[in-house]
Amino acid sequence: MGREMEKLRKIYEGKAKIIFETDRPGLVIQHFKEEATAFDGKKKAEIEGKGVANTQISAVLFKLLEEKGIKTHFRALVSPNELATIHLKMIPVEVVVRNVAAGSLAKRLGYAEGRTLKRPLVEFYFKNDELGDPIINEDHIAELKLATPAQLKEMRETALKVNQVLREFFGARGLELVDFKLEFGVASSGEIILGDEISPDTCRFWDKESRKKLDKDRFRHDLGEVEEAYQEVLKRVTTQD
Amino acid sequence: MGREMEKLRKIYEGKAKIIFETDRPGLVIQHFKEEATAFDGKKKAEIEGKGVANTQISAVLFKLLEEKGIKTHFRALVSPNELATIHLKMIPVEVVVRNVAAGSLAKRLGYAEGRTLKRPLVEFYFKNDELGDPIINEDHIAELKLATPAQLKEMRETALKVNQVLREFFGARGLELVDFKLEFGVASSGEIILGDEISPDTCRFWDKESRKKLDKDRFRHDLGEVEEAYQEVLKRVTTQD
Repeated sequence: MGREMEKLRKIYEGKAKIIFETDRPGLVIQHFKEEATAFDGKKKAEIEGKGVANTQISAVLFKLLEEKGIKTHFRALVSPNELATIHLKMIPVEVVVRNVAAGSLAKRLGYAEGRTLKRPLVEFYFKNDELGDPIINEDHIAELKLATPAQLKEMRETALKVNQVLREFFGARGLELVDFKLEFGVASSGEIILGDEISPDTCRFWDKESRKKLDKDRFRHDLGEVEEAYQEVLKRVTTQD
Repeated sequence: MGREMEKLRKIYEGKAKIIFETDRPGLVIQHFKEEATAFDGKKKAEIEGKGVANTQISAVLFKLLEEKGIKTHFRALVSPNELATIHLKMIPVEVVVRNVAAGSLAKRLGYAEGRTLKRPLVEFYFKNDELGDPIINEDHIAELKLATPAQLKEMRETALKVNQVLREFFGARGLELVDFKLEFGVASSGEIILGDEISPDTCRFWDKESRKKLDKDRFRHDLGEVEEAYQEVLKRVTTQD
């Protein structure tokens, strides 16, 4: 990145990240917090080491995806808990890809948790805290003008490609990628770019052998060993390459 | 229908209808009950005259749709509260078309009730009492093997055509068609056919002038004049043609 980039004013603070403007046009810094929230913010806690773990895990995964031809917002790791990313106009649609039934999908379909799906399945959610991030379909997205049909198609296809890459990567590290959430944004060029983070906050990972959960579900459902789960995923992502 | 058809054993009983086998191969009788249920069966009551009103309204609307080239299961009115229909293997997907925000859509999108949508919007629900009829998307439907993508596409397109026909029909009778639910089935020929009923139990109708609700919402939300609403819709459907 040449000389060090300067962090300027905060432009956005979410539940898990803070975004700072920088002195480089079009580049921002994503600062990863220790705070965790669940159930629409009703449950809150600090998870020690989460910020660094999620930063490092996201950096590895974004690099991997770029190598596989998927455009991401990632540019550089600038500190243990900060990434330099390109500034995107975020699309308020969460794209969820699922390989195995868990969480709301198990409830929706009446499936036992852990049932493998016939093929990867995509869902869209309206990113809207006030409404509790409801599931939506293409018609709702058109009505709300959240994305064009072409953008949505591209997001869906990219999400399925990401799934292929990540599933293989985690599989080789003894982790089952149960499901994950992606967020996309529009770059100044008009391109759709993968944004946000990819971490145990946004994915479900189960140990392939023991089926032990190694993700935010440990926090959501008070399963204990929360910090350890984030560190375990970090270890597998960074050391077994 | 030639000689009168004979009603044989009951083959299905739902919340609002009973289906009887007949002595004519492939034909069944749909008997419309007075019982009304709401909120997954948690609320129950009898609405006097509902069976006859829904039978008569459905008969008129199915005939109208057939005239407009839409294939329906309707064959004849055989008694004041009974229709002869072709026997379908029902697809457990409720197809909802909406023109105006109301009910769960208003909540999902954060819209005020009564807001007109940019264009008619289609939703799919998994017809499953135990699960509370959850909203589902094309991927869920494929996973559950409820319908093929081609069947689903046809159901969606037919539902939008039904909307055009009914919206015009009701509009001419001073009623706004806010939204409605359709169910489809597969005939022995393999064709997708419109089944179930079309009535104030399955549609939302508002008086165009006064915006008064003339449908099952009067029962759901204890608005009073429930019987009168069904009779008013029956009157408008049968007398203003």
